[in-house]
Order: sequence, then C-alpha cells, then structure tokens
Amino acid sequence: MTMQTIKIQPLNAKSFAPYGEVIACKDNDFFHINDQHTERYHALAEAETDAKVGLSIFRNIKNTEIPFQVSMLERHPVGSQAFIPMQGQSFLIVVAPALDQVTPDLSKLQAFISDGTQGVNYRAGTWHHPLLTLEAPSDFVVIDRIGTGPNCDVYSFPQQVCIEN
Amino acid sequence: MTMQTIKIQPLNAKSFAPYGEVIACKDNDFFHINDQHTERYHALAEAETDAKVGLSIFRNIKNTEIPFQVSMLERHPVGSQAFIPMQGQSFLIVVAPALDQVTPDLSKLQAFISDGTQGVNYRAGTWHHPLLTLEAPSDFVVIDRIGTGPNCDVYSFPQQVCIEN
Repeated sequence: MTMQTIKIQPLNAKSFAPYGEVIACKDNDFFHINDQHTERYHALAEAETDAKVGLSIFRNIKNTEIPFQVSMLERHPVGSQAFIPMQGQSFLIVVAPALDQVTPDLSKLQAFISDGTQGVNYRAGTWHHPLLTLEAPSDFVVIDRIGTGPNCDVYSFPQQVCIEN
Repeated sequence: MTMQTIKIQPLNAKSFAPYGEVIACKDNDFFHINDQHTERYHALAEAETDAKVGLSIFRNIKNTEIPFQVSMLERHPVGSQAFIPMQGQSFLIVVAPALDQVTPDLSKLQAFISDGTQGVNYRAGTWHHPLLTLEAPSDFVVIDRIGTGPNCDVYSFPQQVCIEN
C-alpha cells in the first residue's frame, strides 16, 4: 500500500476558511486609531470558549524537517485555539475537515505553511496537528480556552501520511 | 515649572503587577505537552470582557524616539487589552495607577521597555498610553474586548511629562 502524500501549500485565508481564520495584516482591511499612529486590523478572529480565554506561550523545543510523517490529529471541541508567531517565524499547519462526528476525513488532509507574518485560529472542533515548527526553540502566543472538563480528542491514523514540499 | 521626567525601566512581572501581566517565557514556569515537543507557559494572563474576546493586529506606523513627551493616558473600563510583539521587537509601556475613580495618579507614572520577548496584558481599567514603538512599521497581536458600548476613557494631562532613558 503506497503512503499517502500531501503537498504543503502557502497559507491563505480562502484555503484555510473551513478550519478557522488567518491572523495577518496581508489581505485584510484596517482602520486608523491612536491619532493615526496605528492601523487596527480589527477582530481578525474571535475566541470561542465555554469558560475563560487565556494567553499562553507555546515554546516548541523540537523542530520538524520536511518531508515528515504525521499519524494523528487532535481537536478541541469546546474552544478555539490561536497560534501567532512571536519572532516572525514560519511554521507548519496540518488540518482536516470532519468526516463524521468522531473522525477527521483523511482523504481531505491539507498542509499549509505560514510565511511568519501569519498566525492561525483553529475554530472549536477543528481537527489539527499539534504545533509543528521549522526551527527550535520557537515561541508562539496561544489564545485558547482555560477551563475544566475534557476538551481534547485525539484521532490516530490507521497509517502514516507523508507531508512534503 | 520644571517638566516632570520619568526614567524608562526594564519590564518585569513584579514591577508591572499593579497594571497587569507580562506575557513571556522568562521567569515563568511551564509544563510539557505534545509528546515533549512543546513547553506550555500556561495562562500567563486571562482576558477580561463583558462581551467577546477578539484577536486583532495593531500595526504602528509612526515610531517614537527617546526622550519623548506624553500628555495623555487612556483606559478600557470593561476589558483587558494585551499586546504581544510579532517580530520580537522591543516597545515602550507607560502606565499609572488610579488616583480616584476618574483620574490616574500622575505622580506615580511609570515607563517600561519590553525586551521584545515580552508582551503585556493591561487589566481592565488600567491607565496606559496607546502603543509606543521604537521602529515602524511594527506589528503586535492584540487580544481585547469586542463589544458595543463605551470602553475607552481618556485623561489629558495638565502638562506634558518627559520619558527618558
């Protein structure tokens, strides 16, 4: 059986729309605030939660080299989760739409690369791979639900999928 | 009458505590997630809001040179507001505690500089100066309240204050 391979594509709002929002200035409107000193790219995403919204930092300490294999996805049913690079660094995003209530549709798996000016917000319930970075250490501000109770489902693939350029 | 002058000090959690939280890895604990690939610096701050929490980008298009004069502060009574640098860039923070219900205590004005790995979260009601950056353009992810109704008070100083190294 041949290994399924997925090509990495540049991240953009249109392609990523089924999964959430791209947090970036590029291709978005703004209005001026602060006596014209600042452009506000307003509410590029909204946090979803049944509890509180927290600001954390994720420091990835192991880098990923392309090509690489993935064998799982996770989702947070009751909270969105946003990742925004803190040093303008590029990073990788692997997502899939839902096939049914409990399974991602691996035939529609997609891989994106942020250009480093782009963050992402995964909407609640979006199947996504945990943080994948090209360099380490690599810091991201993460905006997600802070609450008690289960909020992470994991799906293990029947076989690995290769992500490549 | 001599102009009041304030020295800029390095940003740290203890000094900033009356105003909110410093969003940084340094000096904070973490736990491992993602099969030991990632350090999570968990819930360094929580968003305060009576409405929704949004993710925006503020692009500052005018830089500030030190020394500089300030003549106003603002506050958001019903929402916190966090600023995290997206390119590891340093920035300036000017804050004051409240003197009474409607006035900041200018005799206790403080100025901080982030080392570029540090963001800040102003708690709801904290008197602070709008975004001040040393370079332009300069991008920050901003996490704040998205809602209707008034949420910005402005206090204009009786005379300018000089901020210097």
